[in-house]
Amino acid sequence: MNSSFLKLINHINRRIILTEDEQQAIIPHLNLRSYLKGQYIVQEGDVSRNETFIVSGKVRSFYLDDKGNEHIVAFGIEDWWINDICSYTTQTPAEFNIQCLEPTEVIQISRDKMEELFILAPKLERYFRLIIQKAYANMSKRIVNNHAQSAKERYLSFIGTYPDIANRVPQYMIASYLGITKEFLSSLRKQIHSDAKS
Amino acid sequence: MNSSFLKLINHINRRIILTEDEQQAIIPHLNLRSYLKGQYIVQEGDVSRNETFIVSGKVRSFYLDDKGNEHIVAFGIEDWWINDICSYTTQTPAEFNIQCLEPTEVIQISRDKMEELFILAPKLERYFRLIIQKAYANMSKRIVNNHAQSAKERYLSFIGTYPDIANRVPQYMIASYLGITKEFLSSLRKQIHSDAKS
Repeated sequence: MNSSFLKLINHINRRIILTEDEQQAIIPHLNLRSYLKGQYIVQEGDVSRNETFIVSGKVRSFYLDDKGNEHIVAFGIEDWWINDICSYTTQTPAEFNIQCLEPTEVIQISRDKMEELFILAPKLERYFRLIIQKAYANMSKRIVNNHAQSAKERYLSFIGTYPDIANRVPQYMIASYLGITKEFLSSLRKQIHSDAKS
Repeated sequence: MNSSFLKLINHINRRIILTEDEQQAIIPHLNLRSYLKGQYIVQEGDVSRNETFIVSGKVRSFYLDDKGNEHIVAFGIEDWWINDICSYTTQTPAEFNIQCLEPTEVIQISRDKMEELFILAPKLERYFRLIIQKAYANMSKRIVNNHAQSAKERYLSFIGTYPDIANRVPQYMIASYLGITKEFLSSLRKQIHSDAKS
């Protein structure tokens, strides 16, 4: 099996158990695609047609406010699903942009293919339920933390939970994700560095 | 069948088709419970042990920021599921409070019973996937709208989408849900009222 497809199959098998036959039946429904750095998997205004699993690379999901400022709501790295779920679910224009921050390889499944997959292997409903439930839990936790934690706590929690993203993403994007200015993030980093030395 | 249970079965049957046998098998796993006005379905610091479907009544889900201010993230009325999903999924202390705004009747399913239900009727995985996917889509849409729309647009969208909640909830709670002060909401309402007259 192609190593990219194997990555997704392994991801699924960590949550449910697919038989060998099911695995083989799933493969033809998957579409492997490469994006260049800077390209968009979903663009605001377009309808999201696919579910997207990141095989390698790194993406960000962001939206623009009414003044044109970017707000990053999520980063995505390998082994993550990323989408504008609202657009995909309701087939309405996306409000989020999902942009590749480096060359990114993904596996995509169109809505039609996804429904075929659910008929082929109904246990995939469980896999996707667990995935979306976790994403929902993370998003609601983030909403609370944006108010309940200080910026410093949020930054420390972010670099503790996602060290790989923290090391690979420009500081101004981390600031946007944390909802603070890049100047404030810079002063936080200095403060944490000086705490660590004292 | 008890009319409360029938309400949930109908809700499920609008998304998937349960056989008569499956419906009968599900019922013993459901727990009917009544809450008084002001009582809590989930309290911050406790672990959420159940999924909760609202049969009748009205609830709000809110959290406290580090200054002790309440932030309402959701209202729930009949035919809605409501929970602190993060707490329920990871069995960690809840960060949200879910409080009844009037006498509220719910159907609850514990985690263990839920797993039994999924074995009994695996198609329920699809039902819950669709429910949580919609909730996720709504939450992400709300995050964007908080920045991309003016308070007036958000208020008009809220009363347009949820007229029943808008009519039954105190204004200060709607202000909290919209992320504005109650004074600002009051001036918005006056402005909208005067727009409508002119």
